[in-house]
Amino acid sequence: MLEELKEKVLRANLKLVEYGLVVLTWGNASEIDREKGLVVIKPSGVAYSGMTADDMVVMDLDGNKVEGRLNPSSDTPTHLELYRNFKEIGGVVHTHSSLACSWAQAGRDVPAYGTTHADFAYGAVPCARALTQEEVESAYELNTGKVIVEEFSRRSIDPRQIPAVLVHRHGPFTWGADCLKAAENALILEEVCKMASQTEQIAASGNSNIGIEQYLLDKHYLRKHGKNAYYGQKG
Amino acid sequence: MLEELKEKVLRANLKLVEYGLVVLTWGNASEIDREKGLVVIKPSGVAYSGMTADDMVVMDLDGNKVEGRLNPSSDTPTHLELYRNFKEIGGVVHTHSSLACSWAQAGRDVPAYGTTHADFAYGAVPCARALTQEEVESAYELNTGKVIVEEFSRRSIDPRQIPAVLVHRHGPFTWGADCLKAAENALILEEVCKMASQTEQIAASGNSNIGIEQYLLDKHYLRKHGKNAYYGQKG
Amino acid sequence: MLEELKEKVLRANLKLVEYGLVVLTWGNASEIDREKGLVVIKPSGVAYSGMTADDMVVMDLDGNKVEGRLNPSSDTPTHLELYRNFKEIGGVVHTHSSLACSWAQAGRDVPAYGTTHADFAYGAVPCARALTQEEVESAYELNTGKVIVEEFSRRSIDPRQIPAVLVHRHGPFTWGADCLKAAENALILEEVCKMASQTEQIAASGNSNIGIEQYLLDKHYLRKHGKNAYYGQKG
Amino acid sequence: MLEELKEKVLRANLKLVEYGLVVLTWGNASEIDREKGLVVIKPSGVAYSGMTADDMVVMDLDGNKVEGRLNPSSDTPTHLELYRNFKEIGGVVHTHSSLACSWAQAGRDVPAYGTTHADFAYGAVPCARALTQEEVESAYELNTGKVIVEEFSRRSIDPRQIPAVLVHRHGPFTWGADCLKAAENALILEEVCKMASQTEQIAASGNSNIGIEQYLLDKHYLRKHGKNAYYGQKG
Repeated sequence: MLEELKEKVLRANLKLVEYGLVVLTWGNASEIDREKGLVVIKPSGVAYSGMTADDMVVMDLDGNKVEGRLNPSSDTPTHLELYRNFKEIGGVVHTHSSLACSWAQAGRDVPAYGTTHADFAYGAVPCARALTQEEVESAYELNTGKVIVEEFSRRSIDPRQIPAVLVHRHGPFTWGADCLKAAENALILEEVCKMASQTEQIAASGNSNIGIEQYLLDKHYLRKHGKNAYYGQKG
Repeated sequence: MLEELKEKVLRANLKLVEYGLVVLTWGNASEIDREKGLVVIKPSGVAYSGMTADDMVVMDLDGNKVEGRLNPSSDTPTHLELYRNFKEIGGVVHTHSSLACSWAQAGRDVPAYGTTHADFAYGAVPCARALTQEEVESAYELNTGKVIVEEFSRRSIDPRQIPAVLVHRHGPFTWGADCLKAAENALILEEVCKMASQTEQIAASGNSNIGIEQYLLDKHYLRKHGKNAYYGQKG
Repeated sequence: MLEELKEKVLRANLKLVEYGLVVLTWGNASEIDREKGLVVIKPSGVAYSGMTADDMVVMDLDGNKVEGRLNPSSDTPTHLELYRNFKEIGGVVHTHSSLACSWAQAGRDVPAYGTTHADFAYGAVPCARALTQEEVESAYELNTGKVIVEEFSRRSIDPRQIPAVLVHRHGPFTWGADCLKAAENALILEEVCKMASQTEQIAASGNSNIGIEQYLLDKHYLRKHGKNAYYGQKG
Repeated sequence: MLEELKEKVLRANLKLVEYGLVVLTWGNASEIDREKGLVVIKPSGVAYSGMTADDMVVMDLDGNKVEGRLNPSSDTPTHLELYRNFKEIGGVVHTHSSLACSWAQAGRDVPAYGTTHADFAYGAVPCARALTQEEVESAYELNTGKVIVEEFSRRSIDPRQIPAVLVHRHGPFTWGADCLKAAENALILEEVCKMASQTEQIAASGNSNIGIEQYLLDKHYLRKHGKNAYYGQKG
């Protein structure tokens, strides 16, 4: 069943490798067939190389496995909670990409520092509140989803306008119209997180005691440019 | 029309991918045929893989599409404003490369910190002033170009001597004699921006409580070098 | 002898290159055959390209070479000391990967800052105490192993729960059930170290004077999303 | 003449690209034939792709071109000054690699922070004094070499023990027994510079308000490890 969707979900999972967002077996992508109410998701702890569409697992929205030889991703209850509450989304991705995880570990929202962010999300990407000990100790992955949904509700954020969240001390979840768009959003979030931390460092830096001497600037610029240039070959 | 130029502009766009300056569909390159007064530019929101010379769009300097099935890059009015005002340039490139965007987001000029910079630009790379709300809300892309031109004029910078600018909170535009040189300049600017932020961090760092112990330095150096070395194979 | 194990140890050594953890001839992987009490390890100072299973060296646990044309890795005594004391481990890896070495050079434990770390190790990855001058000047590589074992003992750490250590001013050793798992752990440690330093920087950063203007956020978000979007191609 | 040496010098130049140390036409490698007193060096401003052994230029130690259609690297007088004064070296490399240039731009020696450094150099890698305006304005490249030699002499450094230098506001020169070893040293210096700046950042960082909660550490570690693990596939 859902053979085409399995192929597509496989492709989205492989995109995460191509985008440089995952190492080893980390990360997972899923997509929902809203008409049938079924979700196709990556199996748990399986290597990307050699993974086939047949390895994908089909789940219903109540968390029952409908088809598949393998265990679904251990993050499946988080995916399902997002599909149940964010009715307009079609695909979900989770990664441990380096900068997004670092923002999550620091427990900070990713501020909107520029147009690369603005092209992607309409405001800061929220870092959800920490789960309580009780929420961690039972139904952890489900509660992870609940805390995301709570955060978006508490802040009145439309998940279509900000297609990403940071789970506190953990890492990013992103979503989109389908699993390929969710994977793209995982890539964009990583780029945006990288730029945000670089921006803060550049904004904070002073520059005492550095700066090229004017005569050295003249020398280097003019040996490469203009009528007295002597770098490279003639003509 | 302009079939050779379309091939060249396609090649310059693909160089941006090869140089690692763009992800997804971000970034665009163009070149002007000064005799004909026509500009060839990348289409908007099209994937680099599978893009052909035929997808390139031909514009006149007034912003009319002269040829092409697709919409031109949404940044086209910025390119055209640069061609209209910087008479000596032949190619323009825009990217969202990571470090150049971070300097733009921090709103700082990139200081000339060394000879890599001096080989490329005759002084700091300016970050243009922020656009006003009015400038953003109407004719945004055209006003982006106007603000660049204004900044170079206000600071009396010859655009041939500094072939790059940072648009505030946005990212870099670079230019050159043709589109391939503009793409090269986008790469150099990214390298220069990366070195500049690293330079500031290194200059600011102290080094309390670190530093290898002399006896450990001796051990490691001498087990690899000199007559008592025992690392590696003999002879 | 041990031909299959030599193939496997070769493969683990090549994984270090594939994972981007080593340059030139740096790094080494080994695995023990517990029944025979023999260890297969990479030769010293040999290039990865062109290395064959035949180049691997077989050692007994007392440090005698049992088979092999080449000298074993100069770090062999450290590997053997780990195998003698950590009875449950089957493979050991040493690299000079960039971030793990930087934490080792700074002389700091790697704190558990998030779930990527928690998936891997049950608490901070210890940086062992500095070797004394006497320990460095005689039987240096053996003493390196002894100091690791002492550190785990002093802190009552089970080496199965934290499969990694930083050697002070030097770099990481990792281990696992076999050499391939030890190599994977070297990769995970590097990722965890990278995230940890990024996390500290993000947590410490302020953000004065940066942040996109609301009207520019509106412009960029809305030119790409919603009914008035004009980026990209129609339909 | 010197056809084999030209092939070797070409190979060393291409290694710089393979090692990720140069972009575009930046960087150059040379080697001396001490018996003949002749130096083979890369031509100036020529692209690495398509470069052939025939493009290499043969110079004598007085700076006269002995063979070659093309202009030699503009840095040739620096190479020659090093060969004239450091009698034991056989190859010289110059790059604009990112971290080494950043240390040079910051005007700082690279301190010996760990064993990766100690394996390579017997003490801090010196940043030479700035050239004076007079030294820059005439015979700039020759004076660059003279300042390096002066720095090593003033500090009584044996160039065999520290096979690298940073030219102030500029970048690194490295050397070795031949051009391939000089290229390797350029790679090691870049790694050492990267680790040194990371080490300083890690040593300076605090970690207020971060650190995974114990119950979350428990959850993640134990869902992947031990008898109650539920991550991945059974068996």
